[in-house]
Amino acid sequence: MAAAEACGGRGSDSLVLGSAVECIHTYSLIHDDLPGMDDDDLRRGKPTNHIVYGEGIAVLAGDALLTLAFDIANQACPTNRYKQNDYVGELAKTAGHAQLIAGQVADLEGEGKPVTRAQLRYIHERKTSALLTCSVRLGGMSANATPRRLQALTDFGYHVGLAFQVIDDILDVTQSSEQLGKTAGKDVAVQKATYPSVLGLAKSQKIAAQLTAKAYAALKPFNGKAVALEALADYLLKRDH
Amino acid sequence: MAAAEACGGRGSDSLVLGSAVECIHTYSLIHDDLPGMDDDDLRRGKPTNHIVYGEGIAVLAGDALLTLAFDIANQACPTNRYKQNDYVGELAKTAGHAQLIAGQVADLEGEGKPVTRAQLRYIHERKTSALLTCSVRLGGMSANATPRRLQALTDFGYHVGLAFQVIDDILDVTQSSEQLGKTAGKDVAVQKATYPSVLGLAKSQKIAAQLTAKAYAALKPFNGKAVALEALADYLLKRDH
Repeated sequence: MAAAEACGGRGSDSLVLGSAVECIHTYSLIHDDLPGMDDDDLRRGKPTNHIVYGEGIAVLAGDALLTLAFDIANQACPTNRYKQNDYVGELAKTAGHAQLIAGQVADLEGEGKPVTRAQLRYIHERKTSALLTCSVRLGGMSANATPRRLQALTDFGYHVGLAFQVIDDILDVTQSSEQLGKTAGKDVAVQKATYPSVLGLAKSQKIAAQLTAKAYAALKPFNGKAVALEALADYLLKRDH
Repeated sequence: MAAAEACGGRGSDSLVLGSAVECIHTYSLIHDDLPGMDDDDLRRGKPTNHIVYGEGIAVLAGDALLTLAFDIANQACPTNRYKQNDYVGELAKTAGHAQLIAGQVADLEGEGKPVTRAQLRYIHERKTSALLTCSVRLGGMSANATPRRLQALTDFGYHVGLAFQVIDDILDVTQSSEQLGKTAGKDVAVQKATYPSVLGLAKSQKIAAQLTAKAYAALKPFNGKAVALEALADYLLKRDH
């Protein structure tokens, strides 16, 4: 029985796997915004979950979304090369103690302390880059990507993820809360280690451009056909919110 | 290739799946003890996670354990009848928005309000019974249980789980914090709906015994061979902490 038939012939489940990643992403934002973490009142231009529903419900909403992510990935269509087992493992590795959680712990513990560029890279790799990498890898898996192309997507996700975070840190300094839809100037206020605070704004912008160029270069095995991913990298570099 | 061979011949993974359940259990306790939820300072005779490490780390520790549970179950040995997909689905269903989270939300929202016996049953089924059921079902799956025996384990878990919670509520009233290893008298203090508060102590004890009898009866398909489960039900009924 072909993989697509096993899923009632509905074929690639890139959107299903995308929604699993979005569950992880939203859960991480709800928990990060809690008073015990970043203590943020504003997200996507609206009051944060705990401001509206209270801390208890915000913790539970995050817990439910994290669980739902695994439930969704566990039911996504397998391809000839990748099974639900691979999808679930990918999410668990990304969201787990060695990546997302390790990054958030290091971020939390680093507040108000001097942080080196290497420590900052450690945080960004785990807190941001890991989930972006997971996202493009799951997309590749749902399209039955060859190992070589999956590796290319991994490299792309790694670099575009780091670029995303550097740009995020820059925007926190240069933009208003209204433009960002979340509290601007927050990093400086809580003495959070960021690229602008460690290396300055000009150097940070240069690094963001370099990382984006590396993300572009990683897409070589797609022979110019990964236009959407190129556009994504470009958009992230030039965004103003 | 036989299922056991696929796992390097290490055979049944009941302990592996048991540790996945324990990750879910411990995560749920860490989050339940948070100030925004039950606000408890004492657990297993020791200060709770957030008392020692702060709220941010306590949230993250729970998140990491929840994720680890799926990672573990996703790597447990398949049997002829059950695959990792079944294990992960079982955990996701149990820990998800329709069971564990729904129970905790109802519990949280019910505090200080009059609660009916039916609402109490709703909370106990989801908050406690679901995880106990999941635990014995995963044990059954790892032993390649027939569908009939898996159903028997489901019925056993359901009733012994409800009995466990009724007894827990009784002990909260009758025992000291020292005996329990957690704060005694807490339910009354926060006006939490419990069997003793809704039906009285004597009636609650009768119900616990009836539920335990039903759990025993559910084990019939094992023809007297499920001695450990019978002993567990018996122990839970007679425990003093």
